[in-house]
Amino acid sequence: MGKNLTSREQDYSKWYNELVVKADLAENSSVRGCMVIKPYGYAIWEKMQAQLDKMFKETGHQNAYFPLFVPKSLFEAEEKNAEGFAKECAVVTHYRLKNDPDNKGKLITDPEAKLEEELVVRPTSEAVIWNTYKNWIQSYRDLPILINQWANVVRWEMRTRLFLRTSEFLWQEGHTAHATKQEALTETEQMNTIYAEFAENFMATPVIKGSKTENERFAGAVETYCIEALMQDGKALQAGTSHFLGQNFAKAFDVKFATKEGGLEHVWATSWGVSTRLMGALIMTHSDDNGLVLPPKLAPIQVVIVPIYRKEEQLDQISEVANKLAADLRSQGISVKYDNRDTHKPGWKFAQYELQGVPIRLAIGPKDLEKGTVELARRDALTKEFVEQDSISTKVPKLLEEIQTALFEKAKKFRDEHITEVDNFDDFKKVLKTKGGFISAHWDGTSETENKIKSLTKATIRCVPFEGKEEEGVCVLTGKPSVRRVLFAKAY
Amino acid sequence: MGKNLTSREQDYSKWYNELVVKADLAENSSVRGCMVIKPYGYAIWEKMQAQLDKMFKETGHQNAYFPLFVPKSLFEAEEKNAEGFAKECAVVTHYRLKNDPDNKGKLITDPEAKLEEELVVRPTSEAVIWNTYKNWIQSYRDLPILINQWANVVRWEMRTRLFLRTSEFLWQEGHTAHATKQEALTETEQMNTIYAEFAENFMATPVIKGSKTENERFAGAVETYCIEALMQDGKALQAGTSHFLGQNFAKAFDVKFATKEGGLEHVWATSWGVSTRLMGALIMTHSDDNGLVLPPKLAPIQVVIVPIYRKEEQLDQISEVANKLAADLRSQGISVKYDNRDTHKPGWKFAQYELQGVPIRLAIGPKDLEKGTVELARRDALTKEFVEQDSISTKVPKLLEEIQTALFEKAKKFRDEHITEVDNFDDFKKVLKTKGGFISAHWDGTSETENKIKSLTKATIRCVPFEGKEEEGVCVLTGKPSVRRVLFAKAY
Repeated sequence: MGKNLTSREQDYSKWYNELVVKADLAENSSVRGCMVIKPYGYAIWEKMQAQLDKMFKETGHQNAYFPLFVPKSLFEAEEKNAEGFAKECAVVTHYRLKNDPDNKGKLITDPEAKLEEELVVRPTSEAVIWNTYKNWIQSYRDLPILINQWANVVRWEMRTRLFLRTSEFLWQEGHTAHATKQEALTETEQMNTIYAEFAENFMATPVIKGSKTENERFAGAVETYCIEALMQDGKALQAGTSHFLGQNFAKAFDVKFATKEGGLEHVWATSWGVSTRLMGALIMTHSDDNGLVLPPKLAPIQVVIVPIYRKEEQLDQISEVANKLAADLRSQGISVKYDNRDTHKPGWKFAQYELQGVPIRLAIGPKDLEKGTVELARRDALTKEFVEQDSISTKVPKLLEEIQTALFEKAKKFRDEHITEVDNFDDFKKVLKTKGGFISAHWDGTSETENKIKSLTKATIRCVPFEGKEEEGVCVLTGKPSVRRVLFAKAY
Repeated sequence: MGKNLTSREQDYSKWYNELVVKADLAENSSVRGCMVIKPYGYAIWEKMQAQLDKMFKETGHQNAYFPLFVPKSLFEAEEKNAEGFAKECAVVTHYRLKNDPDNKGKLITDPEAKLEEELVVRPTSEAVIWNTYKNWIQSYRDLPILINQWANVVRWEMRTRLFLRTSEFLWQEGHTAHATKQEALTETEQMNTIYAEFAENFMATPVIKGSKTENERFAGAVETYCIEALMQDGKALQAGTSHFLGQNFAKAFDVKFATKEGGLEHVWATSWGVSTRLMGALIMTHSDDNGLVLPPKLAPIQVVIVPIYRKEEQLDQISEVANKLAADLRSQGISVKYDNRDTHKPGWKFAQYELQGVPIRLAIGPKDLEKGTVELARRDALTKEFVEQDSISTKVPKLLEEIQTALFEKAKKFRDEHITEVDNFDDFKKVLKTKGGFISAHWDGTSETENKIKSLTKATIRCVPFEGKEEEGVCVLTGKPSVRRVLFAKAY
């Protein structure tokens, strides 16, 4: 199977597209720009959801559900937000189909069932949620509101790619309301930090935390924090964003609260989200020319056991060992698949699980029965070794941790090697072209310069890193003074 | 709080509407017919989801995700299905908004962004899923496909009620593909049985399993199995359905598979679903004039502890006991809330948790500290007793089980008392009017008679029960021969 995959060097983009489909993660649907997330891909997403949901709840958030549709008049209320998303909105205009009188068996939109007010399919839910919060908030006692929603959203995209950019995608969107600016800012930062912890500790994807420039900020936000990851082809990927919305939505929807001191003030807001785009980040951080490589913490199957046999009675003996090993590992909370199907040969199975990124493969043949061994193959390193059957139940859990760490370290090393400080625009262009990755450079702080750099090089400012050093310098393009470096990159 | 609730006797429908809102379960949104599911209501739905998801996975199903939109041409393919849902379809016709040139700050649908083909917001996903399965199925080796999806769907309703009938609702829809008719029928029945087990063992809601008549069948199905519950006002509620789709969708989408024997046949299909409507069933099965009553297995908070104190140092002493009790119970997997907020009085808290249906309330005051006791109140029976603090950790888990059983038994007794056999139409009308509930009567098997009874009485055939006895008789309306009784009722 792996052989049929285009190599990364040949064509990174094609490699990605093929891998997503061949590893059974997702495929394009008959609906323009919308994907089908297949069971194996969805199982990874479910693992992501479960962990994120746990982290949200541990920090005091509750889930709720708000309508899919946003009446146009609500959508318009926060002007910048509306302007930012208007061009991507799917619009429901009718609520009924009827038989086509000219074409038996066909349906047409019933012109008599035109909505008085069009409904926008939510591209994000600030409008509908703040219109609801308005009724929930009277006094400081009603604050904070800490709510998250798992939902589908639609942003009509002209050029789509599985997971990375689709017209419909799945995500979570947190929407919180606070009595003070400081509390909202703290929440914005907390959620960005949670995203970073999730990316690094579960996806094994190193990220840089920072804030967006005005150009790249969420429409309607005062400040957007983000986590930025680096893919193997040297392009950056925005993996999560957390927005400080100031009082913009409270003002647009007239949401005020009685303060402890007896005043009346607009509420402070945040929103934050990650989406099925994380699947793209996960795939592109670790996978290789043989297929998917999954960090153990997010792998739907952590260990697969494949029997190698000629005769039926050999299978029985192997199964006895395999089932015992599987039970041992499962009792430790490890997900194990014993693939004893007789419809597929071991070689086919090996290639399939390699393609699908199962972290550890155990193979047991007749000789292993004699020797009391198992062949253990490690997906990330593509190494094989013979291991005592008796040691499996202690070795495997340790190895899973080891793989998790190794993947992170490898990705971090690659990322760190691909942050290049440059001090003039020739170097900027050269590094971007020959090496890629993040370019750490001085910038004069204007949108104009950022736009100019973008039009010249396609690189944008991915973030102003929180941990960047303060340093006097001059803008890489204009030579104007600058107090700190920012990170540029071409991005997904 | 409870006092403000309309009583069931006064106005059952009003009682329900008030309860849903006052207990913080859900509310109407600014979008016609669409609801906001509030955190407390959503927490119950999450518990339902988790349990159902577990049961689906234990029976070999996997989750996946398919597009929200169905292109009109796909939607039309299975004619009966299309006809059944056409009148309720929200239709996306445009993919962009633009600034209104005549009205600054307002947006209008961009006439230049009209879709070539309209997109239906899924009312159910058979069409888009079978159009996908077509590419997944070539041979018997690709079967069965056992997939479930958790999703939102839209059916444009003119008269809506929170949870019971909303234009957008949340649900799961299983869609399976099989090589044989028998296997598909077995799956249809298995899933209906799983729904029944979930309703009875988790919701504590007794249900009757049966099949739908042609009138009430899912559009596009050959056979619809269902579970029917009875609400306290004597009206039935369809709580779940499982459809045997025969080869209808396989034929509509031309899905054939190579058989083991070398032939080529159409695939057999099932689909099955339950929705947020279950929330309505749960509420109306158990709740009373004081508010919600929740079965412990689905209660987000199973035990609440309320401190009763005058002075701060009393609170400290009470908190010490309360935290110990809470820790004890939590270590047994029980969800406990210790409500030590100083912003609300104990009386307010008592009323609030009663309204929200928390199964067990523990109150601890200064006298309890002296005596080593706790006041334990049981929500379902509205009883109170003093209990030794030392016995709480053994008593509470037992009591939670007892409450779960008691709720089911009470509901079952009520249901059983409200199944009335009648043998003539006068009795039929009288029982329906005075007593309500299910009427077990003979029916001649024709849609004509069923429609006539419906127009005369508003009662419909809820199901042909699987466990009904075979019995010769004559139709309650027409006097024509009948071989078995069916269950009529007015229904939600």
